[in-house]
Amino acid sequence: MELNGRNLIGYQEYSNGNSTFQTIHPTSLELLPTLFSNATFEETDKAVQLASSAFEMYASTTRNQRIKFFQAIHHHILDLGSDLMDIFQEESGLSFQRAVAERTRTLGQIQLFIEIIEKGDWMKASIDSPLPDRKPIPKPDIRKQLEPVGPIVVFGASNFPLAYSTAGGDTISALASGCPVIVKSHPMHAGTGELVARAIIQAAKETNMPEGVFSNLNSNTYEIGSYLVKHPHIKAVGFTGSITGGTALMKIANKRTEPIPVYAEMGSVNPVVVLPEILELQMIRTVQQLAQSIRLDAGQFCTHPGLIFTLDSSLSHTFRTQLATELNTQKPQAMLHPDIWNVYQKNSASHLAFKEVQEITTPRELVKNHITPTLTTTSGKTFLKNPLLAEEVFGSYSLVIVCTNLTELTSCLDRLKGQLTGSIFATPKELISKRILIQTLKSKVGRLIFNGVPTGVEVCQSMHHGGPYPATSHSHYGAVGHEGILRWTRPVSYQNWPDELLPKALQNSNPMDIMRTIDGEWSHKKLA
Amino acid sequence: MELNGRNLIGYQEYSNGNSTFQTIHPTSLELLPTLFSNATFEETDKAVQLASSAFEMYASTTRNQRIKFFQAIHHHILDLGSDLMDIFQEESGLSFQRAVAERTRTLGQIQLFIEIIEKGDWMKASIDSPLPDRKPIPKPDIRKQLEPVGPIVVFGASNFPLAYSTAGGDTISALASGCPVIVKSHPMHAGTGELVARAIIQAAKETNMPEGVFSNLNSNTYEIGSYLVKHPHIKAVGFTGSITGGTALMKIANKRTEPIPVYAEMGSVNPVVVLPEILELQMIRTVQQLAQSIRLDAGQFCTHPGLIFTLDSSLSHTFRTQLATELNTQKPQAMLHPDIWNVYQKNSASHLAFKEVQEITTPRELVKNHITPTLTTTSGKTFLKNPLLAEEVFGSYSLVIVCTNLTELTSCLDRLKGQLTGSIFATPKELISKRILIQTLKSKVGRLIFNGVPTGVEVCQSMHHGGPYPATSHSHYGAVGHEGILRWTRPVSYQNWPDELLPKALQNSNPMDIMRTIDGEWSHKKLA
Repeated sequence: MELNGRNLIGYQEYSNGNSTFQTIHPTSLELLPTLFSNATFEETDKAVQLASSAFEMYASTTRNQRIKFFQAIHHHILDLGSDLMDIFQEESGLSFQRAVAERTRTLGQIQLFIEIIEKGDWMKASIDSPLPDRKPIPKPDIRKQLEPVGPIVVFGASNFPLAYSTAGGDTISALASGCPVIVKSHPMHAGTGELVARAIIQAAKETNMPEGVFSNLNSNTYEIGSYLVKHPHIKAVGFTGSITGGTALMKIANKRTEPIPVYAEMGSVNPVVVLPEILELQMIRTVQQLAQSIRLDAGQFCTHPGLIFTLDSSLSHTFRTQLATELNTQKPQAMLHPDIWNVYQKNSASHLAFKEVQEITTPRELVKNHITPTLTTTSGKTFLKNPLLAEEVFGSYSLVIVCTNLTELTSCLDRLKGQLTGSIFATPKELISKRILIQTLKSKVGRLIFNGVPTGVEVCQSMHHGGPYPATSHSHYGAVGHEGILRWTRPVSYQNWPDELLPKALQNSNPMDIMRTIDGEWSHKKLA
Repeated sequence: MELNGRNLIGYQEYSNGNSTFQTIHPTSLELLPTLFSNATFEETDKAVQLASSAFEMYASTTRNQRIKFFQAIHHHILDLGSDLMDIFQEESGLSFQRAVAERTRTLGQIQLFIEIIEKGDWMKASIDSPLPDRKPIPKPDIRKQLEPVGPIVVFGASNFPLAYSTAGGDTISALASGCPVIVKSHPMHAGTGELVARAIIQAAKETNMPEGVFSNLNSNTYEIGSYLVKHPHIKAVGFTGSITGGTALMKIANKRTEPIPVYAEMGSVNPVVVLPEILELQMIRTVQQLAQSIRLDAGQFCTHPGLIFTLDSSLSHTFRTQLATELNTQKPQAMLHPDIWNVYQKNSASHLAFKEVQEITTPRELVKNHITPTLTTTSGKTFLKNPLLAEEVFGSYSLVIVCTNLTELTSCLDRLKGQLTGSIFATPKELISKRILIQTLKSKVGRLIFNGVPTGVEVCQSMHHGGPYPATSHSHYGAVGHEGILRWTRPVSYQNWPDELLPKALQNSNPMDIMRTIDGEWSHKKLA
């Protein structure tokens, strides 16, 4: 499929603006040929207007219509075949294997939401029976379900051109709930975005979805994103990216006449605690697990392990030396984009500017837009004195903190901001005796991991991918898997509402045959 | 029980400040004798420090310990007997019947949360089994539950001295989740608040809860409330009150280094649509239901029906005349406080300042802090031109809007901000043919009511007491009943965590015998 760089707005294509941009090949640093047309404010308005008029009709599509739409999206993304795999690699510098894995995950998420739509219990349908003879006043018939809030704007992640972008978890969960979606395409992979957007739009057309259920806007400046978040017809925002980007959007959203939620997944340093006994038992396994996690795809993951806390001992010194040795074997890897590489250089240098921070990997020749893993080390004391050392360095960089005792280690954890994950490498016996340490770590994170690395986020109902601020803007919600759908909904109660006018999920005969709570108990029951 | 006006901080009492205030008898306008000591910043710090140190211990109390605490709260509130009923009436001017009804509701809410704690499914415990042989990578063991976020600040409502105040839905749901609570007592009913706070603290002591699980601070200025919301150890806020108050707290909370959620329930005009056919069939019943709802306790409810939309006809003219006649029979009622009365006078006058707005009830002699119901009327055209007419007048005031046709009526509804409720009086046949009108109304509200009034909020699982902004700050959450507890929690996932260190709800043997989702299916199952 040919790219044309136009904005895909409902079922039309536009390139009315005067400014364009190109994506870049991260290895060769050559510009790719497509000229992407920056969306104009008029084009943006058009996308929002269409999404807004599509809302009622899309929200009232039947379960089967929505499933057919999702099956068609699945089909057309798969159908993009090697065109998609090629542009993914050209724009991201990531490997073919990664391209395939990310497509598999993207398609898996679509399949998951087909199952969620089919099952229908995401709506949390709930019925309380009336008690017309209750004294002093009768109890009315009350029913409740979750309903979609309206048009959503999604800002994709730079580091997941497929799985967290155009048809990623935010878009798919929002569409599953019944909300139209406008994607502000990530300018670093606008070509990958365009192909996926075309697949979604083709699916929408084929399955007779209302025009405007999905649009894709190109932009390499902040204005269009801000304009979208300000737009009164937009009801919520999904964002994956930096703390700076996320908090800027939150500010805009909070200033609106009607403030709206920005569900932002922002930075995380994913603290890892390595205790002594496990090193005695499983030194090599621990070193290899961590090394693999640190160097994976140049460390460009929200779950990258950026801080490793150890207790001072000859064993922990061996551990960090072996970890550095293992990381020294890694060949240079391209980062996603020179802008990301520049930030990496700046942030890693800011750590190394402290004379108490030493690099333990072997420095290598600087190659533009390429990095090799950097492992540094410092004392717990230095870490406690310098809050900058707790800040994320996005990329294959980790800091080993050597603490003199458990109290110091716990104090270090207590200084951290909210994180997506926290890992502990320990024997079960070690863990049992470290209650305060675990409590402190838990208070900072959304996921606790035992003897494992934070990278590799399993998509399942029990996964929570979110954490206290600033890991995510709303610690109650996650961006991965089932619970993502809740972000785009609100409950609506119906009091004494005529049965034939109730939404299907709440009707007496349970025509969707879904699980509902009836007077507090889960069941598939029909009511008389 | 004697009131002493001191701040109840953990298990101590303080009155270190220099300034005091008194509550007022709304009918006689005499000051009540107790001097309430305004909390100092140091006292406030003390309350937060205690709540913060109590958090871990309180969060890890067993289900039975927490139930015993709640049973003791229930017992001690009931035990306050006529002391509580007396001060309630003295400070609010509300009737003995209302005092009893509100106590019943308060105790009912405590009983409800005892059942919720007992049942345990509020935690949404969820387990995904591992697949150690899965290719290319094994699936880990992942489990998840909701956990309390930390110390909560509750601002009670002026208009519900018991049910939405010191031991109201916010406090009780937060304590049920495992969060310590600091109440910023409402200065209009500080005595009622003190008695209830003493009951909670006595219950906490008797059942060996950690000191600081509950504190009660007096303040009749904004500083202590702002200071609490800014305090880094506070993790969420519950507020019921005005849009001005709620949005001010939201601003403070959003500006923190770690922004926190303010769950604010703010104003609502609760639009009511009255269609022609129902007036033909049930004029008297409709008039009486609405009249009773409008005049109930001087209309001082968040669910007061403030706007009534009708279609122009002789029938609807009869309707509004009869409604006015019925309201004219109401004797003057005291408002909760002269400050509220002053705002009522100002806001109702601002409506009547429009020459196109006419009063249809008979004006009566002005008695300080007392009102009789006021019914006014205007055209749909005037309503559309003047957004001020869509703003809440808190008290026994309703505006009847006479629209020329259904399109105008729908446009009027479309101009509304978010509301708690929307009612339609109609025959089922009328309703079926008014799809756009219903859609428009639904997009603005959290609860749709058929042939009923918005007052009288049933506490049950299917009740949603919340709505799009500004009815509530987070339209996903309600302040009444079961779902209130979700506001004080966040999910935590445990990956490959040793069984004996998991929270009880997630352990293999299901020692709490609660419903959990295991690989996506609800069950009471134990795992091997």
